[in-house]
Amino acid sequence: MNENDIIYGKNAVIEALNSNTREINKILILRTLHSDQKVTSIKELAQSKGIVFQFVGKEKFQEYSSLNHQGIIANVSPIKYVELDEFLEKENYENESIAILDGIEDSHNLGAIIRTAVCAGVKAIIIPSRRNVQVNSTVDKVSAGAINRIPIIKVNSIQNAIEKLKKSNWWVVAADASARQNYYDVDYTDMNFVLVMGAEHAGVSKTVLNAADFTVKIPMLTDFNSLNVSNAFSTIIFETVRQKLSKITK
Amino acid sequence: MNENDIIYGKNAVIEALNSNTREINKILILRTLHSDQKVTSIKELAQSKGIVFQFVGKEKFQEYSSLNHQGIIANVSPIKYVELDEFLEKENYENESIAILDGIEDSHNLGAIIRTAVCAGVKAIIIPSRRNVQVNSTVDKVSAGAINRIPIIKVNSIQNAIEKLKKSNWWVVAADASARQNYYDVDYTDMNFVLVMGAEHAGVSKTVLNAADFTVKIPMLTDFNSLNVSNAFSTIIFETVRQKLSKITK
Repeated sequence: MNENDIIYGKNAVIEALNSNTREINKILILRTLHSDQKVTSIKELAQSKGIVFQFVGKEKFQEYSSLNHQGIIANVSPIKYVELDEFLEKENYENESIAILDGIEDSHNLGAIIRTAVCAGVKAIIIPSRRNVQVNSTVDKVSAGAINRIPIIKVNSIQNAIEKLKKSNWWVVAADASARQNYYDVDYTDMNFVLVMGAEHAGVSKTVLNAADFTVKIPMLTDFNSLNVSNAFSTIIFETVRQKLSKITK
Repeated sequence: MNENDIIYGKNAVIEALNSNTREINKILILRTLHSDQKVTSIKELAQSKGIVFQFVGKEKFQEYSSLNHQGIIANVSPIKYVELDEFLEKENYENESIAILDGIEDSHNLGAIIRTAVCAGVKAIIIPSRRNVQVNSTVDKVSAGAINRIPIIKVNSIQNAIEKLKKSNWWVVAADASARQNYYDVDYTDMNFVLVMGAEHAGVSKTVLNAADFTVKIPMLTDFNSLNVSNAFSTIIFETVRQKLSKITK
């Protein structure tokens, strides 16, 4: 099996079984896990959906020894990407958010951002078809199955996607360490907005920064200005959640 | 070399050279990196500090093949942990913060939290001597060298540490998904506080929750209530930064 075609780890497989977004062909379970509680759930869920599972010896897991698979691997059909047009036409969005990841290189970061995005009610993730790390089994695992709860949109050009989104009345907020405005000084409660996060080292590309309606920074309390991109994302996106919930309760 | 006694990756080694907090015994550099710009900086820094470096063939890196070492490995003395009493007596803290990590199991999470903590001006990290993942080279790498910028305090009992901190007039805020209060409804601007984050699955232990002055949750916008601990930490700690900076500019 190719690493893009598997989901591994107990929680990730349970999530995939529950969410129905990935077609599961077969589940391999390490024989020694026979009396494990989560494995029992996996067995029961698989049975109820008519999905084949096999208890196998550890030699079957040898090729995945670098993965923290916990003795559970599901062979799945590749993730179904969504088209931007399809997403935009699907409903009338009101005060919603999308994340654009402009060249994220690390699977852990991509998985962590997707997981955080789903918690924060983000409606879609846009990634470029080139440069970005692709959605592989590590992304799936780190996302704790969140990958199955949110449309992933692949685009050939982030710039074109931004132009299209602006025409559809989405405001563009780009995170940039050298921006003047603090992220919490933007009012996110009364617009559809796209939050653009840049690559780990290069940040958001210049053309995208120029196209943004707002560029925002996270002020640091020390001279160590090196926040990880997934932590920066959660900081900003949960500020938008805070603003929305605070407005409701006012 | 033991994995606890090395620092790997270009940025992590540069940070260690600059910060002077870890004693570096020797630096190994992959021979093919001879004309790399960052490697030149490493060479110059090492030279200026009288630290030995060697250009070696890739066979010397074989035992580290599972690490993303980028051709640079520094052999270092073990991290120096700080005593809680020593930390408390060091200065008169005013409106400062500490993080307590109550049983974090994943090196990536520990590294990401330390990195975020340094950005947010947190004064120390407290970890239990057992249960917690220890500070190894992966933590160092993921922290982007932040590990060298903040005291790490190891304690035998988190409970005893909390009692001691409370007596020294630190307020205790524990993150708990089932808390009633939202994290942004606490005023963090006028106290020394300790933010307690729990283990990935088990959360903060019950005895610690009972000892806390505040328990706070991060409200989700969906039913996917599964925020990663390092992302939860950045969300809460940067809310405290936001409050502090907003107060100053008022």
